[in-house]
Order: sequence, then structure tokens, then C-alpha cells
Amino acid sequence: MENLSNLDYASYLKGWIRTVPDWPHEGVMFRDITPLLQNPKSFRVLIDLFVHRYMSEQVDLIAGLDARGFIIGSVLAYELNVGFVPIRKKGKLPFTTVAEEYVLEYGNASVEMHTDACKQGDRVVLIDDLVATGGTMIAGYKLLKKLGAEVLEAAAIIDLPELGGSKLVRNEGLPLFTVCEFEGL
Amino acid sequence: MENLSNLDYASYLKGWIRTVPDWPHEGVMFRDITPLLQNPKSFRVLIDLFVHRYMSEQVDLIAGLDARGFIIGSVLAYELNVGFVPIRKKGKLPFTTVAEEYVLEYGNASVEMHTDACKQGDRVVLIDDLVATGGTMIAGYKLLKKLGAEVLEAAAIIDLPELGGSKLVRNEGLPLFTVCEFEGL
Repeated sequence: MENLSNLDYASYLKGWIRTVPDWPHEGVMFRDITPLLQNPKSFRVLIDLFVHRYMSEQVDLIAGLDARGFIIGSVLAYELNVGFVPIRKKGKLPFTTVAEEYVLEYGNASVEMHTDACKQGDRVVLIDDLVATGGTMIAGYKLLKKLGAEVLEAAAIIDLPELGGSKLVRNEGLPLFTVCEFEGL
Repeated sequence: MENLSNLDYASYLKGWIRTVPDWPHEGVMFRDITPLLQNPKSFRVLIDLFVHRYMSEQVDLIAGLDARGFIIGSVLAYELNVGFVPIRKKGKLPFTTVAEEYVLEYGNASVEMHTDACKQGDRVVLIDDLVATGGTMIAGYKLLKKLGAEVLEAAAIIDLPELGGSKLVRNEGLPLFTVCEFEGL
């Protein structure tokens, strides 16, 4: 048996993240969470860290960003006994939507939510896997505010602080929790 | 309090699925699971139905199909204390992959898995939200078999039997469990 109580959870989880160099293009060190999800113990420790963080807060809804945010967000919603709402890339949601654009490396993209995805005053936690430029997270935050939600916090597994996104998120007035950081781009 | 023990779970859950006519194009009745996920009780009943089905089986891994399959699959993995593996649309996974093509209405598409996503003999349940033509589910099944996994069953919330996919899945020798059916296309 491994005595996890003597370990730093963040280091333990970070150790399960694989770095794939030069993906999706040269110079990028891609931080791959699939080994972390695939191992039963690291996956459980990861989720429990989020559950412990929010279980004593009054949360009405978990919003997950398309698509890796669904993996953490849906388990968290289940464990907190609240509903789960997907924030999706453009063109994936069938009902009436609100949309918010954000800037990509080349051009723009947008995310959408159903207009009835949350109610005025709903207390929401916004989940993604990683904060890079912060573009999708801020767009998701704006959508939630458009629908009248109170966003308690955004949360992700990984922060890449050198890309500046986490700073931009916090500058928007949105508190942000991340489990671990990686240096570089 | 609502006495769910006197209700048929499938009817209860089906009642939370919204039909959006003529989406994504005319003549299609889109079955939208977002209301089911958003309501805390229907979401929990849905997940528990999957958990109860597999909790006494020897399962090593849950594989979820991109992207709505992640929502059910990750919670199921957490509750069963096993790992979660994403089967992704082409170009999303950074490490070495195996790919499998399938036929779409116009042209082809493919899904990918990391080559180290499962080991020889791993007992896997394959999860998606809906079985329409069965194309992605069969492609996911073939990928899992390529990697040496034993796929116990595929499972989804919705079957659209008139599209013929569930029959094709079973003809491949893959047992399939779905919670409810809808008539029409």
C-alpha cells in the first residue's frame, strides 16, 4: 500500500500527466492527461480533489467545457448531486443557444450553451482540463453570466502560466483553481 | 417525494429527453439529452442504472466515445473504481494512435485511441449516448479489439432502431445495452 496521505496530491497527479513534445506542432509541449484518467487510482484521487473542494459549498450546477471538461465535470456533478451542463463548440447543441466568440491562434472560434441551461442565480462551477490562453474558459464564463448564473469558480487540472491565460481569467473577476502547473508553452 | 420504485426507470429517463425537430437538418428528430443531464435526479438515476448494471461484473476499463460518451463513461469509471479511456475523433490524441474509419452520410470519418490505452485481455465496457447508424460504436469496438481488449458490452442511453445501428452492432458480435428507444429517424 502506498501512503498517499504523506504525498503531495498535486505532485502525485502531475506525475501521471505525460508530456508529448512537438504536438500538435513543433515547439509545443503537449500535456496529455490520458494516463492520469486511465489509471484507476490517479483518476479517483483527481476527482476526489475536486469533490472535496466543492462538497461543502452551495453549488447548483457544474458546467463542463467541450470535450475534456466533460470528463471531470460530469463526475463532479454526480458526486455533488447536482446537474451537469455541457458548454459546446459551435454547432453541436440542437436547441436555442447563446454563443460567445474567442480568439484562436489562427482566426476565431465560438462556444455555445442552451438558453435554458441554467437559471438566474444558479451557482455554477466551470470545469475544463487545462488553462492555456484562457480563451475558451473566459468565453464559457461570459455565457454563464449572460444566462444569469453566478460563477463561483473555474477549475482545471493544469495551468500553463507562461501562456498567460490564468492571469486573464482572474482579471475577468473569475476565481480559478488548478491542480498543477507546467512551465513552457 | 416521488416513489421511483413504482416507476419504470426507462420511461422516467425517456421523459427527460427533449425532441428537437428538424435538427441538424429537415426531417431529423434530434433526441437531446441535455435536460436529462441538467436535472440532478434524472442525471443520478441515469448513471446509477449503468452502475448497477456493471458493478458486479469484472470490468477493468470504461471506454467513452467522443464527446457525449465521456459524460456517462467517466462517472461510470469513477463509480466502478476503474480507469477511463477516451476514444476520440481524428486528430485529438497526441501520442501514438490506432485509427478506424467509419462511413458518414457524406464521406468518411475516423476515431482514434492511444496504442497504450488498454492492455491485452482488459475487460472493457464501451459507452456512448446514442446508437443511430452504429458507425462510431463499431469503429470503437474494432479499435478496442485491435488493442487486445475483451469488450464485454457496448451501452448507450438511446437506441434509434429504425436506423438499424443497434442491429449492426449486435451482428458484429458485440452485446448492446440501451436504456430507451425512440421511433423514427
